[in-house]
Amino acid sequence: MLRLDLSNLDSRRIGSQGIDLEQALRAHKKRLEAARDALWGRKGDPAEFLGWIDVPEDTQTLRKVLRYREANAWVEDLVVLGIGGSALGAQAVNAALGKGPVRLHFVDNVEPEPILELLRSLEPRKTLVNVISKSGSTAETMAAFLAFRRWLEEALGQDWKRHVVVTTDPARGILRPYAQAEGLPAFEVPPAVGGRFSVTCPVGTLPLAFVGVDLEALLAGCRKANETAQAQVEANLPAQSALVHHLLSQKGKSVNVFMPYSTRLRYLPDWFVQLHDESLGKAIDREGKVVHTGTTAVRAIGTTDQHAQVQLFREGPHDKLITFVRLEKPTEDLKIPAVAGLEALDYLFGRSFFELLDAEAKATAHALAKAHQPNFAFVLERLDAYTLGWLMQHLMWQTAFLGELWNINAFDQPGVELGKEYTYALMGRRGYEKLAAELKAEGVE
Amino acid sequence: MLRLDLSNLDSRRIGSQGIDLEQALRAHKKRLEAARDALWGRKGDPAEFLGWIDVPEDTQTLRKVLRYREANAWVEDLVVLGIGGSALGAQAVNAALGKGPVRLHFVDNVEPEPILELLRSLEPRKTLVNVISKSGSTAETMAAFLAFRRWLEEALGQDWKRHVVVTTDPARGILRPYAQAEGLPAFEVPPAVGGRFSVTCPVGTLPLAFVGVDLEALLAGCRKANETAQAQVEANLPAQSALVHHLLSQKGKSVNVFMPYSTRLRYLPDWFVQLHDESLGKAIDREGKVVHTGTTAVRAIGTTDQHAQVQLFREGPHDKLITFVRLEKPTEDLKIPAVAGLEALDYLFGRSFFELLDAEAKATAHALAKAHQPNFAFVLERLDAYTLGWLMQHLMWQTAFLGELWNINAFDQPGVELGKEYTYALMGRRGYEKLAAELKAEGVE
Repeated sequence: MLRLDLSNLDSRRIGSQGIDLEQALRAHKKRLEAARDALWGRKGDPAEFLGWIDVPEDTQTLRKVLRYREANAWVEDLVVLGIGGSALGAQAVNAALGKGPVRLHFVDNVEPEPILELLRSLEPRKTLVNVISKSGSTAETMAAFLAFRRWLEEALGQDWKRHVVVTTDPARGILRPYAQAEGLPAFEVPPAVGGRFSVTCPVGTLPLAFVGVDLEALLAGCRKANETAQAQVEANLPAQSALVHHLLSQKGKSVNVFMPYSTRLRYLPDWFVQLHDESLGKAIDREGKVVHTGTTAVRAIGTTDQHAQVQLFREGPHDKLITFVRLEKPTEDLKIPAVAGLEALDYLFGRSFFELLDAEAKATAHALAKAHQPNFAFVLERLDAYTLGWLMQHLMWQTAFLGELWNINAFDQPGVELGKEYTYALMGRRGYEKLAAELKAEGVE
Repeated sequence: MLRLDLSNLDSRRIGSQGIDLEQALRAHKKRLEAARDALWGRKGDPAEFLGWIDVPEDTQTLRKVLRYREANAWVEDLVVLGIGGSALGAQAVNAALGKGPVRLHFVDNVEPEPILELLRSLEPRKTLVNVISKSGSTAETMAAFLAFRRWLEEALGQDWKRHVVVTTDPARGILRPYAQAEGLPAFEVPPAVGGRFSVTCPVGTLPLAFVGVDLEALLAGCRKANETAQAQVEANLPAQSALVHHLLSQKGKSVNVFMPYSTRLRYLPDWFVQLHDESLGKAIDREGKVVHTGTTAVRAIGTTDQHAQVQLFREGPHDKLITFVRLEKPTEDLKIPAVAGLEALDYLFGRSFFELLDAEAKATAHALAKAHQPNFAFVLERLDAYTLGWLMQHLMWQTAFLGELWNINAFDQPGVELGKEYTYALMGRRGYEKLAAELKAEGVE
């Protein structure tokens, strides 16, 4: 169960920085319906990259993933070679719900020292390497794959092939033919699914199958979010939270803090930051107009960041919309015991950690509202696979709705191309000699 | 060795979004000198909270810390109970330089499930608990202490006292008398040192002593930063990077991205975010005027966030100043091997991971400059204790200089008080009944 708590957006509570959502929903009903219908209508066209809507229905692929996991019970360490959307989703869900027994490692950078440390800590015979790149050309992931591939072969000879599993495009790129030539098991990133929307396909589900996450429930939660995204605006939760973002961005809220009150959800903000920033930060709109859209998502964790960022959120500029994620019930709770000699803390004695967490979440949100800093919460009944799947798919929908409201393509990332080309030039890749010379003339080498 | 690379701020390269730092230094020389002299002049006054300047000179306390570590060679797991400034510094340095053999665990939240998981994984006989709270009243830390204290006693009886070490104010608060009454070893947070400036005192050094960090070198690096902070503005690195922040904030850059190109430095942005946000986000200036100062620090890691946030940084609104941290040399490097069948990647064959990391850092910075997104870099000769100490103390100085330029108190955090009071009210603490009733009337309970 997921619901929105919008009480700290209410203009009766926070004044001119607030909104009256019911009224706003009426005023924007046509526009939201048009956005909803446009998204559902374009879903069938692969060029629109809306494949993530249907992936949670694909129980056949999930069964294939689960069979692969069962057939590889020998795995003790699973190394995911993937960066950005190829790592963040599985990382977030694993931290929230993973229960082993396999240890997951994410290689999402190319700094040599941590890679060396990981290689030295692993037993190749017990290690499975999952290389994830839709295009097969991601420099960081492929560099890591070259190193792990060589390491496996040096330790295991031809047996290295049992220790690699590939997740890539079904047809395009260099990893698919390589997997075929070497006879490696390979899973598909559906062509119409972008990296940041890929957690429900094998990019996410394959690693998560190895740490005991209830993937059936995760996908069922996603389907529930789809259901709400199809509803009338009055019951359409993603349309509603997207409208909140839209209206607050019009009030000058250029920063979106995403702050779950949960250590288990500590990687969810990183996943959200990518989803939000890469989808919505665009220079050009669908008509070709220069727009420079985008609000900046900021990661925070409650209660921890009450002691780091909340000072700024409360007293700093009024440029923020804060999204909390709050849990209604713990999975398991722990009593705070009484200790003689520390009676000054007797207000804690006999209470529970969850009660304290919950009080801090509500107290902080209310203190921010008192300072006219608008905030709202996703309230999850509890932290389980169904609810987390619902929330993640909800956030994908929220992002898609915002793309429609802002008339931009939320599913591409043209702004990262030039950096890639400069990297190729600096690495001496063939065909980039001219660019390398240009960079050198500008003092970059 | 630490230096600034300001080439991507140069207005000849990035146009009107840039600055000419040499000219700006001349124009602001008087103001920067006044800030420098004010900070050094106020240093002796405990009420000014500038104790962090002198702490790196305190080799006597460091020796005491190292002796304590030597006397406790039995420790296999060290649990730090601390939140915000009581955890972030040690966390950042440990991730960068910690080499064990002791495992560090940070309990910086009150979600019950992760605490239960940690308690179940620990062997009390081999565990040392370091409770860190300057005031002794931090609800999260003290709740955790009550639980760990009880857990130790249940397992070890009166021997629990050997397994607790306290870091707190030398006189104030409830932890100091408690440590005295129970005969617990206790270290001091100097009264004139705030949490976010405390990494060089036992708050940071005690845990770091257990993971083999070269603390002598760390403090020597801090002293080097002090030296540069005393220099004429032309050689005063903190004054210079503070001026960059100041001038860019005047150009509407309200978001400060902090992006080290290093997985080992993955927690440094979290430490910086607290330092920056909590120090500079203030409603009221030193004259009592309502100002709502503060720019929002954003965490990013290169190369990883090239695949998450750089799309927004490049194409989104021009509201950002990006600070990179770049290393000039690796501690240890790793070759990228050639693999038959993957010749499309031959530009990587025989190169090294560090070369790729370095190329991506330079490529990304330059691509951002091409989009007129101003950025600069702290360039570290290598990642070691001396250089990291220098950088961290530099960033404390940068923050202090900004506080002076903005005429605010960078050393308090009044904005977190109301949230604490609401928490007390919701937890039923004596004396907060009226506030609890008010909250209930507003629908918060």
